[in-house]
Amino acid sequence: MKSLFFSFRIIAAVSIGLMLLTVGFSQNAPCETSSKFGSDDQIGNLNYVTPAKTLAAIKLVTKGKSYSLGIETNKDIPAFPPRTFSIVVLQPNQTAGTTFGPTKTTYNDDIIMGWVGVGTGIDGLGHVGIDNLYFNCNKAVDFVAPDGLKKLGVENIPPVATRGVLLDMAGYFKTDMVKEGTAFNRSEIEGAMKRQGIKSIEKGDVVMFYTGWMKLLGKDDKRFAAGNPGLGIEGAKYLASLGVAIVGADNVNAEVMPFEKGAGVSEVHQILLAKNGIYIIENMNLEEMVKDKVWESLFTLGAPRITGGVQAIVNPITIQ
Amino acid sequence: MKSLFFSFRIIAAVSIGLMLLTVGFSQNAPCETSSKFGSDDQIGNLNYVTPAKTLAAIKLVTKGKSYSLGIETNKDIPAFPPRTFSIVVLQPNQTAGTTFGPTKTTYNDDIIMGWVGVGTGIDGLGHVGIDNLYFNCNKAVDFVAPDGLKKLGVENIPPVATRGVLLDMAGYFKTDMVKEGTAFNRSEIEGAMKRQGIKSIEKGDVVMFYTGWMKLLGKDDKRFAAGNPGLGIEGAKYLASLGVAIVGADNVNAEVMPFEKGAGVSEVHQILLAKNGIYIIENMNLEEMVKDKVWESLFTLGAPRITGGVQAIVNPITIQ
Amino acid sequence: MKSLFFSFRIIAAVSIGLMLLTVGFSQNAPCETSSKFGSDDQIGNLNYVTPAKTLAAIKLVTKGKSYSLGIETNKDIPAFPPRTFSIVVLQPNQTAGTTFGPTKTTYNDDIIMGWVGVGTGIDGLGHVGIDNLYFNCNKAVDFVAPDGLKKLGVENIPPVATRGVLLDMAGYFKTDMVKEGTAFNRSEIEGAMKRQGIKSIEKGDVVMFYTGWMKLLGKDDKRFAAGNPGLGIEGAKYLASLGVAIVGADNVNAEVMPFEKGAGVSEVHQILLAKNGIYIIENMNLEEMVKDKVWESLFTLGAPRITGGVQAIVNPITIQ
Amino acid sequence: MKSLFFSFRIIAAVSIGLMLLTVGFSQNAPCETSSKFGSDDQIGNLNYVTPAKTLAAIKLVTKGKSYSLGIETNKDIPAFPPRTFSIVVLQPNQTAGTTFGPTKTTYNDDIIMGWVGVGTGIDGLGHVGIDNLYFNCNKAVDFVAPDGLKKLGVENIPPVATRGVLLDMAGYFKTDMVKEGTAFNRSEIEGAMKRQGIKSIEKGDVVMFYTGWMKLLGKDDKRFAAGNPGLGIEGAKYLASLGVAIVGADNVNAEVMPFEKGAGVSEVHQILLAKNGIYIIENMNLEEMVKDKVWESLFTLGAPRITGGVQAIVNPITIQ
Repeated sequence: MKSLFFSFRIIAAVSIGLMLLTVGFSQNAPCETSSKFGSDDQIGNLNYVTPAKTLAAIKLVTKGKSYSLGIETNKDIPAFPPRTFSIVVLQPNQTAGTTFGPTKTTYNDDIIMGWVGVGTGIDGLGHVGIDNLYFNCNKAVDFVAPDGLKKLGVENIPPVATRGVLLDMAGYFKTDMVKEGTAFNRSEIEGAMKRQGIKSIEKGDVVMFYTGWMKLLGKDDKRFAAGNPGLGIEGAKYLASLGVAIVGADNVNAEVMPFEKGAGVSEVHQILLAKNGIYIIENMNLEEMVKDKVWESLFTLGAPRITGGVQAIVNPITIQ
Repeated sequence: MKSLFFSFRIIAAVSIGLMLLTVGFSQNAPCETSSKFGSDDQIGNLNYVTPAKTLAAIKLVTKGKSYSLGIETNKDIPAFPPRTFSIVVLQPNQTAGTTFGPTKTTYNDDIIMGWVGVGTGIDGLGHVGIDNLYFNCNKAVDFVAPDGLKKLGVENIPPVATRGVLLDMAGYFKTDMVKEGTAFNRSEIEGAMKRQGIKSIEKGDVVMFYTGWMKLLGKDDKRFAAGNPGLGIEGAKYLASLGVAIVGADNVNAEVMPFEKGAGVSEVHQILLAKNGIYIIENMNLEEMVKDKVWESLFTLGAPRITGGVQAIVNPITIQ
Repeated sequence: MKSLFFSFRIIAAVSIGLMLLTVGFSQNAPCETSSKFGSDDQIGNLNYVTPAKTLAAIKLVTKGKSYSLGIETNKDIPAFPPRTFSIVVLQPNQTAGTTFGPTKTTYNDDIIMGWVGVGTGIDGLGHVGIDNLYFNCNKAVDFVAPDGLKKLGVENIPPVATRGVLLDMAGYFKTDMVKEGTAFNRSEIEGAMKRQGIKSIEKGDVVMFYTGWMKLLGKDDKRFAAGNPGLGIEGAKYLASLGVAIVGADNVNAEVMPFEKGAGVSEVHQILLAKNGIYIIENMNLEEMVKDKVWESLFTLGAPRITGGVQAIVNPITIQ
Repeated sequence: MKSLFFSFRIIAAVSIGLMLLTVGFSQNAPCETSSKFGSDDQIGNLNYVTPAKTLAAIKLVTKGKSYSLGIETNKDIPAFPPRTFSIVVLQPNQTAGTTFGPTKTTYNDDIIMGWVGVGTGIDGLGHVGIDNLYFNCNKAVDFVAPDGLKKLGVENIPPVATRGVLLDMAGYFKTDMVKEGTAFNRSEIEGAMKRQGIKSIEKGDVVMFYTGWMKLLGKDDKRFAAGNPGLGIEGAKYLASLGVAIVGADNVNAEVMPFEKGAGVSEVHQILLAKNGIYIIENMNLEEMVKDKVWESLFTLGAPRITGGVQAIVNPITIQ
């Protein structure tokens, strides 16, 4: 099948051309996933994280205590099949106890083989689409390549320093761990806000849902991976209407599972990522923040800039 | 060679035991790489990043402008041989245009195959040692395993929010790009500080050296990888004496290359990582910070928590 | 996007069901790629390699000289983009010169990260299809999974010991190296046979085309990968009519590149793999066999049985 | 740690030089692992597989029935820790049901991430050593590199077509499955030969031990991996004295586990690979050959030629 080498570009161009003719996309008509930030936009609601927004978030810091929201990534973390993950540590050129130079230098190096979506991860805007239409009218045939996305890759994610809002849904439901399948919609979101004294959710905010679900990790991984409480469709639309930049949760999907009655497959992901340019972070460790009641904080994130990456393994830091 | 399966643990225990007898390590005598934070310490000078330190750094933020210090990681970035890097993007279970459910969900996923030390990376404290002795008296035979470090792995790196100090060495040397082999020692460090009006370098600080070296990337990769200006041995000891937590630079090694006359192989790495518990970040993009003259800022870092990892691909965020 | 975890199987079943309704496949009507060996067949024309066929091939051996037809697989071999290949050698648990037991055992181990289609490879019957219809009426949605093919995987390839027929196309064209784009059709095949005194090509044979193309490898890799002489459409149909089991060549594609006028993309691959259950081996080293004029020989192949593999890296052995 | 980039070669040369001075290897004195085929030899006893030997083996074929001796390689096969294995199948550039050209070409491709020593594998002569001395006086520091062996790599394994001798050890011990820890030494080997009417084992032969152990695979993987009957030290020396080229077995180690009393760790591997240039094949499927009582056959093997590989995933073919 190496013959494609020669003719692929021409053929692909032709077939994409035909496809465009057939499907009849028009540059003038706005598509279902168009960005409010213009046709060149690749970062969606992270556009709302302006210096003013950052400066306001900085003012939330009163104690200087930092929180690491990443869980560990390794071969044992439950992940969406068939994702696997493996790390190898080796000592290049150090056979037989070889060391280098007069100070006897030795070193370890490491290798990763695996799927990115294992552990705490951010879904880039190229992760989920609607019938192969992704954020900002990007069609898969135009930007998805086997060696990396040509647009919407995680290397485009800008530095994030903004307000983090933590919603304690376990507290709201008066439980240690919210039951799987429990959808968080406008009523639950506003109820939790009220209970915690959070006045508003604003443009450029990161909204994090605490469900207590991390208690299962390593104890009942099967249940951990099979479902979870999380954002519902109406709730996703509500948060989108408020202009949030990122939605996260302390479970594997952030979106409620099983899906709500009548909902599409991962429709909340479609609403957030594709239709509204809102990023999703899964598997966040929010235990310590909840214990300290850190409802509003400075949220910072620097996603590793792997060119063309769909997702990124991350470790967001919040500061109280 | 699968026979080791059965007997490895016993044999390994015995041989390690013999080795210890031979080498004669004593738990009472402090070793050359012992931590000032106690025998259980795994994070070295990041212990200096206390809430008070973070709070002080927060006060440096006046404009709210954020900077992304990560360069991209991909197969074309020059890396220390034989490191390679590869990403694959695929659409699981979506052959023949298959979509999922009533809202026609589609998605991309990604895979990484490669060495961690490609692009902007932090060297964990298990990266470089002295004759197989690593930070805090950890001997390789005790904590290095082929499937990940059992101590000093990057999953232990705590949330970092501290003061970042940027030294404009190109400015100090009145050039656009400091010549390879130029060592930064106490005199150069203090000279640059004075020129920039930086009063002090303190415990828990992140010190970043700007050399202009990123201008070569993608233009003269061979020169980029073959050497660079950077920290010298006396300079490393000086920064260690000040208690810095992380040293970084905008080139491939942070340590001066070729090494100083009489220096060991990567001896600066040994001094920082092994002897002093100071982390190193290579390949930082400092161009924009220098342009804006952001000499002191809030530096934040959340390293992806891959269990047992030696290094991590990172994207530090500074805020002015 | 981990929500699919829960609902994927149901949804997939439904969407496949709908697709079947739409496309209207009927079990009764034979499909375009049906096997003459029955609806359960997964090995196509390798069914022709019977004990009688093997026994006849054994009789061709007169000198006992063996030939290795595999070229090396490594990162430098030109391969169809974006295929990459990487090997890592390490010494697990042998830091600081550790050896195991009284006889001081040491060992190396190796890791592969890469695409299978690099070097000498056999294309399995699940490699190329016609609009997602693969050999023996297998639709992609039914057997292609991200963690391996559920049918037509290379683990099904039976032991091969049959007659190998080597066609010296360079000799036929009176040249050292046949020009790229030169198609081998019935006339060229029969001409080469006549010139070499080969009486017939029969059911279960392996037909190998020598083009002299390996002379370019490592010397002009760009030309090596950009095109080659090879089997044409009429030639492919002719060989299929004779019932050959495998077609191979000493170049990257075996199929002529650029494709013949009016031909589809890799249409020869479609004719052989999908429509006729004939395997393809690319990048064979036939130099020594041609030098020795080994026109007919015993051809043996044991493809590594990686479960669900599409292709396999192989090293066929012929014996004169 | 990228500083080694610049100075590694010089330093390595120096340290290797010092090591040589210290250890005092002399080119004149034959070392413990020297080859009887000369100082350049990289293939050991496969030198005995001459055309005459092959021709004699060809004469053993009477029925034309072929046997595939490879078991499948996948993530579930028990393997020596921490070996892992993963395959990924994808459809490059075929998002949204894209096909190529007028004949609507589609295709699958596959990727491997994993350790080579999983499934049926041949141990190359660079796999096991004695205190970092490998076959033919090759010291690890001289030929082992992190990106592949510079000598003794599996790409050097010549085409194998020789006599295969199958010893039915289960039959000899009058059992279905020989107990783990049962050592096969000269007495057992000769006993089995006598029982089966095998007159001799000769130079260049492949000797395969059937133990019934494959019955455990997928049923009691823990026991399968924890030990096995196999070749003992005296037996290994005996086979070496006869000049065999390859030793194989239907279990994970071929060498008896637990090791014999007083034996070193994997000492049989050392005797075969390092001291005598005899290859080892593990995890062979010999069930069908035993059922057919194929005691002597033509054994063929073409190991995939991955440059610098330590081991290779193989599928040997025998013909009766």
